[in-house]
Amino acid sequence: MRRWNGWGDTATSMDLPAQGLSFLGERIGSGQPLADATLDTVKAHVPPSRLQGIADATGVEVSHDAETRIRHARGQSLADWLAMRSGDFGAFPDAVAFPRSSPEVRKLLVHCARHDIVVIPYGGGTSVAGHINPVEDSARPILTISLSRMNSLLDLDEESQVATFGAGVAGPHLEAQLRAKGFTLGHFPQSFELSTLGGWVVTRSSGQQSLRYGRIEQLFAGGRLELLRGDGKALDIPAFPASAAGPDLREWCLGSEGRMGILTEVKVRVTRLAEKETFLAFFLPNWNKARDAARALVQSRTQLSMLRVSNAVETQTQLALAGHPGQIAWLERYLGWRGASEGKCMMTLGVTGSRAQVSAVKQQLKHVLSDFNAVSTGELLGRKWAEKRFMMPYLREALWKQGYVVDTLETATNWRNVDRLLNAIEDNLRTAGPKAHVFTHLSHVYSQGCSIYTTYVFPCAGSYEDTLKTWAKLKHSTSAIIVEYGGTISHQHGVGKDHAPYLPAEKGEVAMDAIEAVMKHFDPAGLLNPGTLLADAPGVRLPEQLAGD
Amino acid sequence: MRRWNGWGDTATSMDLPAQGLSFLGERIGSGQPLADATLDTVKAHVPPSRLQGIADATGVEVSHDAETRIRHARGQSLADWLAMRSGDFGAFPDAVAFPRSSPEVRKLLVHCARHDIVVIPYGGGTSVAGHINPVEDSARPILTISLSRMNSLLDLDEESQVATFGAGVAGPHLEAQLRAKGFTLGHFPQSFELSTLGGWVVTRSSGQQSLRYGRIEQLFAGGRLELLRGDGKALDIPAFPASAAGPDLREWCLGSEGRMGILTEVKVRVTRLAEKETFLAFFLPNWNKARDAARALVQSRTQLSMLRVSNAVETQTQLALAGHPGQIAWLERYLGWRGASEGKCMMTLGVTGSRAQVSAVKQQLKHVLSDFNAVSTGELLGRKWAEKRFMMPYLREALWKQGYVVDTLETATNWRNVDRLLNAIEDNLRTAGPKAHVFTHLSHVYSQGCSIYTTYVFPCAGSYEDTLKTWAKLKHSTSAIIVEYGGTISHQHGVGKDHAPYLPAEKGEVAMDAIEAVMKHFDPAGLLNPGTLLADAPGVRLPEQLAGD
Repeated sequence: MRRWNGWGDTATSMDLPAQGLSFLGERIGSGQPLADATLDTVKAHVPPSRLQGIADATGVEVSHDAETRIRHARGQSLADWLAMRSGDFGAFPDAVAFPRSSPEVRKLLVHCARHDIVVIPYGGGTSVAGHINPVEDSARPILTISLSRMNSLLDLDEESQVATFGAGVAGPHLEAQLRAKGFTLGHFPQSFELSTLGGWVVTRSSGQQSLRYGRIEQLFAGGRLELLRGDGKALDIPAFPASAAGPDLREWCLGSEGRMGILTEVKVRVTRLAEKETFLAFFLPNWNKARDAARALVQSRTQLSMLRVSNAVETQTQLALAGHPGQIAWLERYLGWRGASEGKCMMTLGVTGSRAQVSAVKQQLKHVLSDFNAVSTGELLGRKWAEKRFMMPYLREALWKQGYVVDTLETATNWRNVDRLLNAIEDNLRTAGPKAHVFTHLSHVYSQGCSIYTTYVFPCAGSYEDTLKTWAKLKHSTSAIIVEYGGTISHQHGVGKDHAPYLPAEKGEVAMDAIEAVMKHFDPAGLLNPGTLLADAPGVRLPEQLAGD
Repeated sequence: MRRWNGWGDTATSMDLPAQGLSFLGERIGSGQPLADATLDTVKAHVPPSRLQGIADATGVEVSHDAETRIRHARGQSLADWLAMRSGDFGAFPDAVAFPRSSPEVRKLLVHCARHDIVVIPYGGGTSVAGHINPVEDSARPILTISLSRMNSLLDLDEESQVATFGAGVAGPHLEAQLRAKGFTLGHFPQSFELSTLGGWVVTRSSGQQSLRYGRIEQLFAGGRLELLRGDGKALDIPAFPASAAGPDLREWCLGSEGRMGILTEVKVRVTRLAEKETFLAFFLPNWNKARDAARALVQSRTQLSMLRVSNAVETQTQLALAGHPGQIAWLERYLGWRGASEGKCMMTLGVTGSRAQVSAVKQQLKHVLSDFNAVSTGELLGRKWAEKRFMMPYLREALWKQGYVVDTLETATNWRNVDRLLNAIEDNLRTAGPKAHVFTHLSHVYSQGCSIYTTYVFPCAGSYEDTLKTWAKLKHSTSAIIVEYGGTISHQHGVGKDHAPYLPAEKGEVAMDAIEAVMKHFDPAGLLNPGTLLADAPGVRLPEQLAGD
């Protein structure tokens, strides 16, 4: 069963090895565990629902029970985590609907428009930016619409390699349905186990192997958006391989974060399963070499499916958390002997394709990497990475038990600006709050630049309230640095409510005016997911407000 | 000097070889040359300008002379061609401005907003869909704004591989400025010699080597759009390598066709010049094998820079027009002996990259193509193609002299729909009008589908008027077939005025409402390029109106 107050299934967990714990203790002191609220306590605090009769009026399954409302009230940001663990949830949806088809979604939307009900679309509930959190609204009740029942492969055109899915399909179920027919979407965000196709599209998600398969922007071929329009008309976006026929409505859905309508059916570009796939780990002697090697590989269009570069602290942390201290010590000796000791940085590469392609690319990348004194360690570490590729979110549970919180921040910028921005982010996280363990990798690379993905761990402050304030201060001040230093406020997590206050600095007034005009065109009454993307709803507990308490 | 009534420079022309002419005569009868109007005759018919004082008010260079207005009145569609050759131009801009900077464009726009002047942005004047044609407007004067003076490389970030150009830079000048520093944009549309970067962006252009470099959508990283807003604020789009920060304003500029504002500065993703580039020609025994081989190559992600497939009639036509009948006869014998005779189809491939990449890809493609009984003819025909890659537009001049007109139509669709759509297009062109010579190639391939590019040649009908009516009937009926049969109304030429009537069938009412709302947001008074993209201006001579005369 899925955890009501954390990540993933209760049957799955990830333990922190003993050396990992002492590694952390040495750096930021021991953790301070906080007591968790129980589900029953939270249930007792859920207010009565202000909604009734929707199921009768629409024929759609609607749940008003406390547990369902709790399970759809929060995502997976650190603020959400602290809310769930403390039991202090703030607002709840008044009900959760479970439509089974596009026409059912349409009926719900028509009903909500008629009765002035706020609508929140819900995919996998994995947002780390507050996308699906209800905003307290004393005047208008809130209906969360879960797409979870709409999870089937509706059509597969094998010749054109286009698959049509219900938008609520989660990663593993999507891949299972495609793999049964010899295909893959190849979209593997860290949240893959729970996040959904519709969520990926409306938040502009990026998967670990985007170098081969593209971001969701490249995979999204078309689909259907159900709207609030009184006439019940939907936005049907045709799936062309390419088009010069004016504005591309796909691009308006991408990143719309539930403010235009609800994406119900999604057409995606799929690929035949590759003959061969391998993940390789190399070690570079220092950060400059590692970053430059990544840039050289992507700018030379070496046909990789993945390229990640960890900085020295992340490399050291990964080796400490890997377990198997004997093997790691041997590896360290080998790397030292080959010239990669203190300051070494790990690069993980994916190569995917036909046998001939994989073997050609392995040759090419060895050739490029030799210019940067890279040391190959073969496939073992890469295989380990691939095995655990979706396990990182479970680490929060393991650290929490030990009294630590962990969060991540991410952005993207041009190559010329990478070090300046990365250093500003890390410096701020290290100095603006308590002693924190901070490390970074570049997770997605482009010829123009890359994403910067920073993890920070710090011990819980004596209480939930203080821990939330500490986090809010770090999140707020670092978000401000990201936009000030020329990064985008998000490379892959989206805007949600947490990043909305930083969007105007990035896009400018003219762009914000235009975005608001489009959202208003689709939703004149402001019923669709208020406070998300545009900071236009009162009552959101923004980081700076919390920090100022 | 550039031709005032046709394509390209007067110093350049392309002759039709004698065998080509007899090849055509056998198929569609002999041509019927029409007499050309002289520039002086046209000048005498240019009405007085309704604009004055703009230069004084704004400080920007403005020309009111007849020849300049003639030279900016028409693009390169067949209707434009007939207008220029007959001298029957219809409307002219009242003046043409030549700003040198973004602030100058801004001044012009502020002036036009204040004085209710219609604005047409002008890049290279190469539109084949009526983008830059003024619409007769008895109430409002028309100012065409040429971006031709804004053609410099303003910045090159070699590390991030981002170049900033003035939007009016034409292909050869853009490439020359980049190549001097070891870079290329790699965007080579057929119109490369004259078309401009800004025009490519706002019409969603695609270049011949888009398989390597991407369409202009992938190359366009950001830039500046000057607006009609009274406050003089521009839309500055930051250049990130990727972002999940909500709607992407780049995508709103792409395909906006001058209706949102004027793109003045463009940031593009550039690439270091490749070590090696080669073009290869293969012959496939028939169309089914050729089409399937193209699909196999692109779906297996073989790292090509170009892939074009000519159908049997186009293959035959190319060989007939190539000249060198002796060599061609020898080639035909060789191909026949290898199993590719009647019905054979030519595939032209580009391979670009490092030496290692090119050699690996050549191996891979031979492996894939051998499954389809492809016969390699090496690099000679590919080299010939590359030498003449931008010469095709000159063929219209050569055919015209012989009394023939030539036009092209293009679309894109999913692989599953290619034959159905292609056959419907060709059948209509062969049967709806006079005897026409019709042939097709697939010029851009994607895993999902491809573009379909059809050329048709027919003899001029006794008069200009009748020739225009014949063309309008063919253009109109085939455009209707394209959208009815599930193609996009344009893969690479854009919408302009000629395709605008077909856009609603492709996008649907909901999308059209939304696009109109955005354009209205940026241009409430409807001053920007009316009639383009949206069929909202009276007085456009639509093909069906001409056909109905």
